[in-house]
Amino acid sequence: MPAAFLKHPFMSQQALGECDDDAMVQAMLAFELALAEVQEASGAVPNGVSKRMREQFKHASFNVAEIAEGIASGGNVAIPFVKQSRALLDNEIKRYWHQGATSQDVVDSALMLLLKPRLAALDDLLSRCRSAATALMDTYIDTPMVGRTLMQQALPITFGVKVAHWAVGLEQSRRRLSAVELPVQFGGAVGVHSGWDSLGLEWMDALATRLGLAVPVLPWHTDRYPIHALGTALDAVAGAAEKIALDVSLLTQTEVGEVAEPSAPGMGESSSMPHKRNPVRSALIRGAARQVHGHTSVLINAAAQPLERGLGEWHAEWAPLMESALLVEGALEQVAVLLEGLEVYPEKMQRNLAATGGGIMAEPVARLLAPTLGSDKAKAVSAQAAEISRRETRSYSDVLADMLSEHLGLESGVDAHALQNACDPALYLGSSTAQVLRAKNWLKNY
Amino acid sequence: MPAAFLKHPFMSQQALGECDDDAMVQAMLAFELALAEVQEASGAVPNGVSKRMREQFKHASFNVAEIAEGIASGGNVAIPFVKQSRALLDNEIKRYWHQGATSQDVVDSALMLLLKPRLAALDDLLSRCRSAATALMDTYIDTPMVGRTLMQQALPITFGVKVAHWAVGLEQSRRRLSAVELPVQFGGAVGVHSGWDSLGLEWMDALATRLGLAVPVLPWHTDRYPIHALGTALDAVAGAAEKIALDVSLLTQTEVGEVAEPSAPGMGESSSMPHKRNPVRSALIRGAARQVHGHTSVLINAAAQPLERGLGEWHAEWAPLMESALLVEGALEQVAVLLEGLEVYPEKMQRNLAATGGGIMAEPVARLLAPTLGSDKAKAVSAQAAEISRRETRSYSDVLADMLSEHLGLESGVDAHALQNACDPALYLGSSTAQVLRAKNWLKNY
Amino acid sequence: MPAAFLKHPFMSQQALGECDDDAMVQAMLAFELALAEVQEASGAVPNGVSKRMREQFKHASFNVAEIAEGIASGGNVAIPFVKQSRALLDNEIKRYWHQGATSQDVVDSALMLLLKPRLAALDDLLSRCRSAATALMDTYIDTPMVGRTLMQQALPITFGVKVAHWAVGLEQSRRRLSAVELPVQFGGAVGVHSGWDSLGLEWMDALATRLGLAVPVLPWHTDRYPIHALGTALDAVAGAAEKIALDVSLLTQTEVGEVAEPSAPGMGESSSMPHKRNPVRSALIRGAARQVHGHTSVLINAAAQPLERGLGEWHAEWAPLMESALLVEGALEQVAVLLEGLEVYPEKMQRNLAATGGGIMAEPVARLLAPTLGSDKAKAVSAQAAEISRRETRSYSDVLADMLSEHLGLESGVDAHALQNACDPALYLGSSTAQVLRAKNWLKNY
Amino acid sequence: MPAAFLKHPFMSQQALGECDDDAMVQAMLAFELALAEVQEASGAVPNGVSKRMREQFKHASFNVAEIAEGIASGGNVAIPFVKQSRALLDNEIKRYWHQGATSQDVVDSALMLLLKPRLAALDDLLSRCRSAATALMDTYIDTPMVGRTLMQQALPITFGVKVAHWAVGLEQSRRRLSAVELPVQFGGAVGVHSGWDSLGLEWMDALATRLGLAVPVLPWHTDRYPIHALGTALDAVAGAAEKIALDVSLLTQTEVGEVAEPSAPGMGESSSMPHKRNPVRSALIRGAARQVHGHTSVLINAAAQPLERGLGEWHAEWAPLMESALLVEGALEQVAVLLEGLEVYPEKMQRNLAATGGGIMAEPVARLLAPTLGSDKAKAVSAQAAEISRRETRSYSDVLADMLSEHLGLESGVDAHALQNACDPALYLGSSTAQVLRAKNWLKNY
Repeated sequence: MPAAFLKHPFMSQQALGECDDDAMVQAMLAFELALAEVQEASGAVPNGVSKRMREQFKHASFNVAEIAEGIASGGNVAIPFVKQSRALLDNEIKRYWHQGATSQDVVDSALMLLLKPRLAALDDLLSRCRSAATALMDTYIDTPMVGRTLMQQALPITFGVKVAHWAVGLEQSRRRLSAVELPVQFGGAVGVHSGWDSLGLEWMDALATRLGLAVPVLPWHTDRYPIHALGTALDAVAGAAEKIALDVSLLTQTEVGEVAEPSAPGMGESSSMPHKRNPVRSALIRGAARQVHGHTSVLINAAAQPLERGLGEWHAEWAPLMESALLVEGALEQVAVLLEGLEVYPEKMQRNLAATGGGIMAEPVARLLAPTLGSDKAKAVSAQAAEISRRETRSYSDVLADMLSEHLGLESGVDAHALQNACDPALYLGSSTAQVLRAKNWLKNY
Repeated sequence: MPAAFLKHPFMSQQALGECDDDAMVQAMLAFELALAEVQEASGAVPNGVSKRMREQFKHASFNVAEIAEGIASGGNVAIPFVKQSRALLDNEIKRYWHQGATSQDVVDSALMLLLKPRLAALDDLLSRCRSAATALMDTYIDTPMVGRTLMQQALPITFGVKVAHWAVGLEQSRRRLSAVELPVQFGGAVGVHSGWDSLGLEWMDALATRLGLAVPVLPWHTDRYPIHALGTALDAVAGAAEKIALDVSLLTQTEVGEVAEPSAPGMGESSSMPHKRNPVRSALIRGAARQVHGHTSVLINAAAQPLERGLGEWHAEWAPLMESALLVEGALEQVAVLLEGLEVYPEKMQRNLAATGGGIMAEPVARLLAPTLGSDKAKAVSAQAAEISRRETRSYSDVLADMLSEHLGLESGVDAHALQNACDPALYLGSSTAQVLRAKNWLKNY
Repeated sequence: MPAAFLKHPFMSQQALGECDDDAMVQAMLAFELALAEVQEASGAVPNGVSKRMREQFKHASFNVAEIAEGIASGGNVAIPFVKQSRALLDNEIKRYWHQGATSQDVVDSALMLLLKPRLAALDDLLSRCRSAATALMDTYIDTPMVGRTLMQQALPITFGVKVAHWAVGLEQSRRRLSAVELPVQFGGAVGVHSGWDSLGLEWMDALATRLGLAVPVLPWHTDRYPIHALGTALDAVAGAAEKIALDVSLLTQTEVGEVAEPSAPGMGESSSMPHKRNPVRSALIRGAARQVHGHTSVLINAAAQPLERGLGEWHAEWAPLMESALLVEGALEQVAVLLEGLEVYPEKMQRNLAATGGGIMAEPVARLLAPTLGSDKAKAVSAQAAEISRRETRSYSDVLADMLSEHLGLESGVDAHALQNACDPALYLGSSTAQVLRAKNWLKNY
Repeated sequence: MPAAFLKHPFMSQQALGECDDDAMVQAMLAFELALAEVQEASGAVPNGVSKRMREQFKHASFNVAEIAEGIASGGNVAIPFVKQSRALLDNEIKRYWHQGATSQDVVDSALMLLLKPRLAALDDLLSRCRSAATALMDTYIDTPMVGRTLMQQALPITFGVKVAHWAVGLEQSRRRLSAVELPVQFGGAVGVHSGWDSLGLEWMDALATRLGLAVPVLPWHTDRYPIHALGTALDAVAGAAEKIALDVSLLTQTEVGEVAEPSAPGMGESSSMPHKRNPVRSALIRGAARQVHGHTSVLINAAAQPLERGLGEWHAEWAPLMESALLVEGALEQVAVLLEGLEVYPEKMQRNLAATGGGIMAEPVARLLAPTLGSDKAKAVSAQAAEISRRETRSYSDVLADMLSEHLGLESGVDAHALQNACDPALYLGSSTAQVLRAKNWLKNY
């Protein structure tokens, strides 16, 4: 297989183990056994046959390599699987195996079965992230830091509200994902249960129940809405994770240093540079998310499938869909660790707030001065003071006070205390706290 | 502008007119006026100011070219718009214009305002498509045609059930789209309503109500979930439309000829080939859908935006989002016409069902023969008979009867009537009818 | 790993074996050994050290699982590889291992080493395809078939010229791919050979020569042009292959039946429908190509990498690049077999040419009649005759002759022989033959 | 049209003017006139006809709105254009208009004609960027700055070498783009010059020459290699531009401040925050590049087009191809201004080099100490000293000297001067200068 070194580090290791070829065989087997049971319950298979099948497969071992080799001639794994599994059955019950089903029924349903625990795992991880984020929001609810737009220092926010935005992003994608249905696929050769008439839909519904999958309106062999919904919902999670990793990687820059990824032995070490701690988790998250977007591009471009079965469009979905799930799970494992152990440096945030010589407070100062000086002059004065403050490393409020009194002769016009306050980032946090509280409320009400 | 010839034919003409630069100006204006009103209601703007603003803009005419020119220096349209619109106001109320807002608030909210009637138009079109599809489902509920998998004739279905799958595809995407929220954006410079504290969230909520937009949990300046949800929902509609166009273009092939696009004067004519009728609507739908997928790729790759404002990521969203909506609307206008006027040729479907000499009935025949001949021999006989039937243009059931009686001496084993039936596609339609009924029920229950 | 069943069928099996984790280890080893040799040659490593290294690794066995596990903490495979490989060396030479190199040097160069034989294999396959296509062009140089635009029958072409277009498509992409350079990567920690001054570039050049890779202008750690060039060139090959598969799948449709995929035991068989032969190779090619386009989307979206090393952008390239190569190789293996064994049915092509009752010849007929009847009437007559011919299954030229003589009284105006010829597709092949000859000439001159 | 506000700011304004509907009409007209001339030269059009055509169109004015309206029924602009333009001709020469051509010939060739001056403009811009970059390389050839990997400070480089990597990136994409051919398209209805036999290829070649386009091997109506080659080459340029914008936006961050975008009146000003200067050009470049990647995704997914004319695939190419060119040109206009006027702050680079208390020099120090202390201890000491230096704001070399003498008693083991040097970033620039010289040589030799 193509070097796993290049791909697996982005994926959940546990998920990898639960989605391998053996797991796929078991999922296909589960589909076929459930089908026999459903058919037996409706009388289309003699009593006891499905039980015999289940027993005969209990200790059967599949030849995965042979199945793999058999894919080429039929173009999908269900064909060699059905052949091999049927051969393991007693002759007289062979004919009830895979009855009324087609390859696409097996493959699509098996994929849904493999994905179901993955979605559960993703939901768990997202809940874990939500808890960790909530804790950060509580701790840093009034910790000022500078907000940055177009990556330039702009005005103060709090670290708590930043985390609140992360958390809302994750939770929105969680709710969307949790609403996505994983339907069973069962339609037979051309999707109309050929030869089984109205039994077909009954079996489809019963199969869904038995397998713990959703009941679709109709078979969806070339109505790929379920794949589109799932693929894009996974992509939304990837995007929410990627946003956090992007912010963390920007905030961990040496010159910014406001947060650091959780330290762990060996984690982020550079082989050659002893002083360095690389934001490796962020790199893995961002690397995973980008690959997910590529997979999503495949899925959305394959949404339209011809007539009653795709000719390549269907085939192209398998790996991108499965791998998207594994990549998102891998990314969320990293996000959870990041949020649970993020190192936050309020004092560095404080220092960066002062980096422009107070210039980031130029807006509130200008607002304060506007009634007295007029809007344009107020802006000019506040900007000039910031520049002097930065150049001479003097306090912004001192420089301002000097400028106002000496040069402008405005001794009485502006209240000194108000001026002091207007220069204090910690007093200019807007709705930061209110947003954190609102987010917390929304996060838990679901 | 880049040749409109190349792009506008894919878009809704009406929508184009309602989403031009003038409409954008009006949307930005609506946002700013609503903001002033909301602020006045909370006491942050003197009584009567917002009304004066509204009056002063009543007959104001904007210089669109000047706004366009002004975009370059600030990087977005809100900046020159705010400058130009503020200049139109009386001096003493100028300062209350755009108060507490930032460019992104204006642009994001204006986009949502432009998109709102588009989503309504899409919903109308999708409802129209649903009605047209339902009528087709009724008319052709028992019209047999051949189902095709991997584009090979497989087994019979009905045209009614094919349309049912189309309709379910469209309706799923309609329901998803109708659940997408278009939230107002209002957060100020860094998303925390700097300088306005808890008033900020109140204003955000009130703005949403006043503008008829959704209330977001928090400002979403760099939590682009709403864009992701909307963009991928539009993409799902595009995919459902594309599926129909793909099927229609396959079924209109000269050699298949089972349906034709609605004829209209000049529509689909070739300038050089008089005999030809091109499926132009399908081409336009497929062309539009592919462009939507490209736009979606931009949106999902821009989901992660840095810190408190994107640096290019945000900017990259505008055109793809807006154009996706216009392309999907254009595509649906074509789908509606297609479904409302589709020409269906049941007799051609009948002829194609016979094209393989009955070979498509080999499966049911093999099933019938299996108990007598064993599964393998049954398959071989049914396949060989199909080949003879096709080569000698004889009826499949006749060839089979001959083979069974003469060559195999099986006169008694197989019931002649059952054999006849097994060869009749119209008696082998599985759950086709049941699926149509189920789909109709689902389509109307919402 | 994620179910190989879902992905490997699209890939070259041989290539899979040559690009696994062991191969990656060997490629990284080759890089490090060559580096030591190059450094020894320039005096930066004591004499004999590189030879000792090579000997000590001769029989060393690597613990692939341990390397895999070590990736998480550093974020790439080079870090645990260097650690494990260094530990296998005698203490006194350990310090010369990986000297002056960084992880990215190892990973990027190792990828190039793995890809080099793949590009050679692709070139071989493309040459094989070219030969097979040339043979088809020769055989069918004057075999008429109908050309189809917008999937409607239009005017005659030959099967030879169709294959010529396929061949030119493949060969263009072959020439582009063969011009793509696989450069060595060597720049050290930040790409400037820190600590080694001008020796750095010398080593880079010597390394390239020793490893059989191209010499880059400069290290390309965040100038990802080589990846963009390679990824998009692979994508072009995928597109050319996909075009052939698309045509084949359209031409193999039951109702068209002009070609068939090469038959092979079990190939394309349906488990349930004995009459069916699925174009499985086309499905695999199209499935592969679509996945390649998704990978390309990842690569082009990662072209811009920050400062001196990507933070996720680089990581996101590995799997898509490698897998694109394996998918394209898999697709070409199928294309080669397709072209070498394609079953072509000239008589079916002939029959389809007649399907419109000669209507596809309406254009030449209209041209013939135009001087006599005027352009508009000529078009109307030719179209009407086609319709009558199709409906009454009469020869187009007979119908035309009747219409012209009886109804129009044009006995003398139109030459009967000319009319006969104008109705004969085999006499209306335009430049088909000339194009085949021109293509053959171009294909061999390189 | 969809709000130009949202899209045109990313595009070249000049190019927009030269690629509008009028320009498209003129390009189609140029194609048809050249065709008539070529045909007249070969005797297929009576003498003097093409001249009459040219004269009759000299003062003709086209009704663009009518053409636009006519697109819907035929699905492309050539059909209404041919109809309208033919109507403008004298009756007796009408029949020679568009003779032997099909819509796709007109549209594809017209696009190539519109794109030709765009590629020339791109080449000019890229040459301008190369000159500007070369000047920066000269000026800052030995200006030390810190190199950053995974956005963490790593080791010193020079600003000159950074620009060299940018310049090589741009120049590689320039060379690729300049090698892309813009071929004429001419094949008639089904690509084989129906009715014109061997004249067809002659005309194709002559047309290319007359129009200044490249001669293709064969008509390429469904061999879209030329579009793939062009689209991906444009994308490569976008990627190279995007890399520069990404670096600039990182280096202009308030906390880094090593460069600034060229200042211009009003450029980058924030409407609300007087202290801010936004990297607007970088935002526009990055916004443009992302949209180009989406367009490229459309083009590569449309590479495979069915049979003799795409059904939607072709149509989907038009806008993405044209807009990619306009977006890349827009981006390069910004890059040129950026490079020509970039403000560079060497002293800020110097300050950032010291930000880690010299920790970025830990690697060279560890290398110096390794022979004396052993590799592990050397790393530990160098790292610990960096930490002390950063915390106590003392010079790294002083801290090291202390640690070595006092704590380790290593007075004699390490040369003080060598230690001093090992701590000096300006003496640890590796091949930076050599790379600049090499790049300059390579840039000019072409």
